[in-house]
Amino acid sequence: MSQPAITDSSSLDSLSVNSIRILSAEAVQKANSGHPGMPMGAAPMAYVLWTKFLKHNPGDPQWPDRDRFILSAGHGSMLLYSLLYLSGYDLTMEDIRNFRQWRSLTPGHPEYGQTPGVEITTGPLGQGFATGVGMATAERFLASKFNKPDFNIVDHYTYGIVSDGDLMEGVSQEAANLAGHLKLGKLIYLYDDNHISIEGRTEIASTEKLRPRFEACGWHVLEVEDGNDLKSIEKAIQEARDEISRPSIIAVRTIIGYGSPNKQDKSSSHGEPLGEEELKLTKKNLGWTEEPFSIPDSVLEHFRKAQYKGQDLQIRWHKLVSEYRRQYPESAELWREWIQERLPEGWENSIPAFKADDKGIATRSASGKVINSLSPILKNLIGGSADLAPSNKTLITGEEDFKSPEYNGRNIRFGIREHGMGAFLNGIALHGGLIPFGGTFFIFSDYMRPAIRLASLQKIRVIYVFTHDSIALGEDGPTHQPIEHLASLRAMPGLNIIRPCDANETAEAWKIAINSKGPTALVLTRQDVPILDRAVFSAASNIAKGAYVLRDTERAPDCILIGTGSEVHIAVKAAELIENKGFRVRIVNMASWRLFEQQTEEYRKEVLPPSITCRVAVEAGSSFGWERYIGSVGAFVGRDDFGLSAPPEELYKKFGITPENVANTTINLLSKNK
Amino acid sequence: MSQPAITDSSSLDSLSVNSIRILSAEAVQKANSGHPGMPMGAAPMAYVLWTKFLKHNPGDPQWPDRDRFILSAGHGSMLLYSLLYLSGYDLTMEDIRNFRQWRSLTPGHPEYGQTPGVEITTGPLGQGFATGVGMATAERFLASKFNKPDFNIVDHYTYGIVSDGDLMEGVSQEAANLAGHLKLGKLIYLYDDNHISIEGRTEIASTEKLRPRFEACGWHVLEVEDGNDLKSIEKAIQEARDEISRPSIIAVRTIIGYGSPNKQDKSSSHGEPLGEEELKLTKKNLGWTEEPFSIPDSVLEHFRKAQYKGQDLQIRWHKLVSEYRRQYPESAELWREWIQERLPEGWENSIPAFKADDKGIATRSASGKVINSLSPILKNLIGGSADLAPSNKTLITGEEDFKSPEYNGRNIRFGIREHGMGAFLNGIALHGGLIPFGGTFFIFSDYMRPAIRLASLQKIRVIYVFTHDSIALGEDGPTHQPIEHLASLRAMPGLNIIRPCDANETAEAWKIAINSKGPTALVLTRQDVPILDRAVFSAASNIAKGAYVLRDTERAPDCILIGTGSEVHIAVKAAELIENKGFRVRIVNMASWRLFEQQTEEYRKEVLPPSITCRVAVEAGSSFGWERYIGSVGAFVGRDDFGLSAPPEELYKKFGITPENVANTTINLLSKNK
Repeated sequence: MSQPAITDSSSLDSLSVNSIRILSAEAVQKANSGHPGMPMGAAPMAYVLWTKFLKHNPGDPQWPDRDRFILSAGHGSMLLYSLLYLSGYDLTMEDIRNFRQWRSLTPGHPEYGQTPGVEITTGPLGQGFATGVGMATAERFLASKFNKPDFNIVDHYTYGIVSDGDLMEGVSQEAANLAGHLKLGKLIYLYDDNHISIEGRTEIASTEKLRPRFEACGWHVLEVEDGNDLKSIEKAIQEARDEISRPSIIAVRTIIGYGSPNKQDKSSSHGEPLGEEELKLTKKNLGWTEEPFSIPDSVLEHFRKAQYKGQDLQIRWHKLVSEYRRQYPESAELWREWIQERLPEGWENSIPAFKADDKGIATRSASGKVINSLSPILKNLIGGSADLAPSNKTLITGEEDFKSPEYNGRNIRFGIREHGMGAFLNGIALHGGLIPFGGTFFIFSDYMRPAIRLASLQKIRVIYVFTHDSIALGEDGPTHQPIEHLASLRAMPGLNIIRPCDANETAEAWKIAINSKGPTALVLTRQDVPILDRAVFSAASNIAKGAYVLRDTERAPDCILIGTGSEVHIAVKAAELIENKGFRVRIVNMASWRLFEQQTEEYRKEVLPPSITCRVAVEAGSSFGWERYIGSVGAFVGRDDFGLSAPPEELYKKFGITPENVANTTINLLSKNK
Repeated sequence: MSQPAITDSSSLDSLSVNSIRILSAEAVQKANSGHPGMPMGAAPMAYVLWTKFLKHNPGDPQWPDRDRFILSAGHGSMLLYSLLYLSGYDLTMEDIRNFRQWRSLTPGHPEYGQTPGVEITTGPLGQGFATGVGMATAERFLASKFNKPDFNIVDHYTYGIVSDGDLMEGVSQEAANLAGHLKLGKLIYLYDDNHISIEGRTEIASTEKLRPRFEACGWHVLEVEDGNDLKSIEKAIQEARDEISRPSIIAVRTIIGYGSPNKQDKSSSHGEPLGEEELKLTKKNLGWTEEPFSIPDSVLEHFRKAQYKGQDLQIRWHKLVSEYRRQYPESAELWREWIQERLPEGWENSIPAFKADDKGIATRSASGKVINSLSPILKNLIGGSADLAPSNKTLITGEEDFKSPEYNGRNIRFGIREHGMGAFLNGIALHGGLIPFGGTFFIFSDYMRPAIRLASLQKIRVIYVFTHDSIALGEDGPTHQPIEHLASLRAMPGLNIIRPCDANETAEAWKIAINSKGPTALVLTRQDVPILDRAVFSAASNIAKGAYVLRDTERAPDCILIGTGSEVHIAVKAAELIENKGFRVRIVNMASWRLFEQQTEEYRKEVLPPSITCRVAVEAGSSFGWERYIGSVGAFVGRDDFGLSAPPEELYKKFGITPENVANTTINLLSKNK
């Protein structure tokens, strides 16, 4: 593609577009770090979208009925910061100058919760694309639930700018397939089709054809041949908006680093500053004469019409909602409750108490019962499974599938797409108003790890229902048996993992998850586990503290057995064997490390007194990390190597994860330290 | 789809097909666990492929020029075991009867290295599909390298049977895109298109169209309308073989659980035994009159023609190779060396020694130099990056890209497809003959985790070049800064992680990786790190032991500082500060936990004497797991929460990952324990 003619710099349009370009390039240059190419290439489409279409109010970035905007190509963060600054969000030029500096409002990649107007943390490619599908789903579900004739109180689009990298990542295919299947017509992505990736021209690695790929998934595909042609961009976005039964992707042929005479259309403009000299040449090339970090008044004025336009829109919407409240007070109240993320009074009372029972039930089954006891009360609980609903017990009975055109179902059929599901759940949570959950086998948490990490980083309430949580799944063998998964997720900042030991703890774990500000992973058994008699053992509600003394001795214990999930019952049986030998045993249930670590030091020492060093932990998984609680002296009973295909009882026996082995290990330890 | 007429059971063909069905259903029934539906539905296509096309020799499953067969839908393992047994591989009926039992040759999912004839471990969906692309790549590269006119000593197909689940997983899109781009015409997948997944009909979650999706990726798409129509299947496979410039996918419309009167075409036949009664009805329905676990002689005889056909093929091939050896002795010798996975004598000598230097270089740069010093000697070293080659330093200079039609390049352009890359590397390793490596940012190891786990489980030599290994990458911020990644991968069984502290250790790490039988992750800095003066510090080659005393005191040390990678240099500086206070400091470099844990207890105690409890570890990442080495008394300097966007020096300072903080922490610890 030869260099196109420079857009007439005298027009307000091109001055506005160039403002984005120059501001982005200047901020990157000042930070001496960042990605100028993307904002420079994508400025025109962003300009058209933000000034002609995007429904937003810079004065209230939380307005519930705003359009959502996702910069999936998060490395182009300066594009977004430029738009936010220019449109009059609470972001100053000083913030722009502080791009990529310690605790600035303008970090290297957009971060949710950090910057007014940033809807989502992006950067890891494909995530923004896939998360948007969840956002658009939330909009459709809420619209279906609350809108009434003449009262479209929920009615907004989800827009995104996506890149080559987003489309190459497999998660975007999972998400595209879902979005097309669900006919999410109000999802519109602009594809920054610049033909350049870090290693060179995209064609060195990818020659796929966009149109048939996306049409195969049920999308509406549009093309804009010249990424500087504002009229064509506008026309395409309008067409995308008009097509309400299919999500749209608009491939806009752009030039990365547009305006930079020596770097445009080259990888070199992607991930590093243009350089002082090249920045000068770029300004000259674009006819830019302003001082550094200075925007022409005309441009500011033009962009900041968004402020009063947005205010006006929001006021009109508030009027609509007021009238809605008069006509439909109950719906209005419920809607407000959801949007404000409040829970209905006494919601927890619907959760069943499970009677003590030696045979018991699988914690996955308990989870299924809890979901179904909560679902009539928490009507914004919505979720599903990556094609394992019958196994994960995630189905809400009596509810429809979430599907077009009704969009009122609360059972989401994610298909065999764990990664897509993870991002999708993030989108529902980020949109607001709903409580999303998603299930799969624990082992497949690996498939969705990048999305789990983003939920953790963004501190959003997503609930993972991970079942089949150990070698106890048996015959399916090592490809399906989690070993390192507890450890590897415990190490992730911000993620709360709860591995309840019985049905009542599962119920408590659900309460914690729903009350939580961040993501929670419920790690649940496939097999039946006893339901403990809480007259004998401490209350299940104690798992809110992460770890607790499940059963103690009358006098100071000689040793502590620590278990989680199904292995708590092994500890209970082992305790009996040890006590038969005349030792005093405390049993500690450590369902959640994170919650335990949030307790006071006093409480933690109460549960695990430093003086009692004879500690044995039992967990059907890796020992990795357990030294934190068993100390240098203690022992661990579990499995560090991969599992094996065989009946579960045999695996436990052969691997020595048995009451006998725990007891012997403890007794040996006691005698050694005597 | 209504139930089709039962195939005429009198013909040998249908008796053979039914043998697979019944044997599979019987084994699942006996194990009381497993997946009968897939083998019953896919038996005809498997039968045609294995008896009419597959080039293999049951007597020598290692024959290098055999076709590769991948059961990507690994849950249908009994299909594969049936084929192996029937074709005369070293698998007995007793093995079949032991399906899914402790240490049997017939585990729940196919496991590489466990069962003769199993080419790859499958089960986690999408992996088989994506791994096949690597296998087909290895074939093309070796063919290009070794074949001569009239001597196609490398000339085989890669076949697979893939399922709905494989196609829904995003990794299959990444792989399909790559395979089409690379025009891997000898890759042929049969798609078991049964319209059923665990939650019900696939259409509840997926309505994408196969043909345009795959044609968009450059594939040849074929369809067989009736999965029991052997002639049509045969014709389609032949057409796929004839199309040599595009990979082929053949959608074969099958009926899951075919033959079971009450369960066929239903999810209920997918993942559990048919039940004794239904099995009886199935046999009746299929006209099956044999005793349990008994195959008609005619069928066995028919299938086992594969034995002499295979032997014959292999003998002819050996003759070809003999003549090749005469005409091209050097090529023949090199080929043999590669296939036998031998390394050329003295290969390590090519690796440069790096001179001590305070400024030093980034370990990623050292890695790039090592790759390029090895590449002329190890001409089977092949790899690339997921579009980060300039950052990962993975480019082999002077070599072409691996591309059609030459296929002689050693630089693979994976595109922004980490997961696909991971599976692809597994495929190259499983094929044999080559040493594959792949690079990305360490943070994106999350994207490829399922593939890394399969490399670990299969114990195959794959080398990961993970650069930008900590918050030291700075401004890109928390989405790009690994925190928990070292811990989360250290917990994975079978994966060796090496985090070298300087250029010379990086060189040693590469040696270890190449000599390894399993996968190795090299975890490398973005930033420059000093090159230690090995006259002052112990030899870099010590990292082969995982951890070693980098520098000791003359008398017994008061404390031990433990560091890895770039933080070793912080430990070195901290040691000086501590020594200035009159304490004696030992510095331990702990580049690889796994290697250290493989050393004798004696050695381990020598490095970390139990008597020295004042230990401080420093690593720019999570403390998770470090208690193993610092004990209950020790301290850790690092970062447990997410990182932040700012210049790296500032992050280190603000997070307290500094020599001063390490020194103060240590001194406090020393005074506390006095």
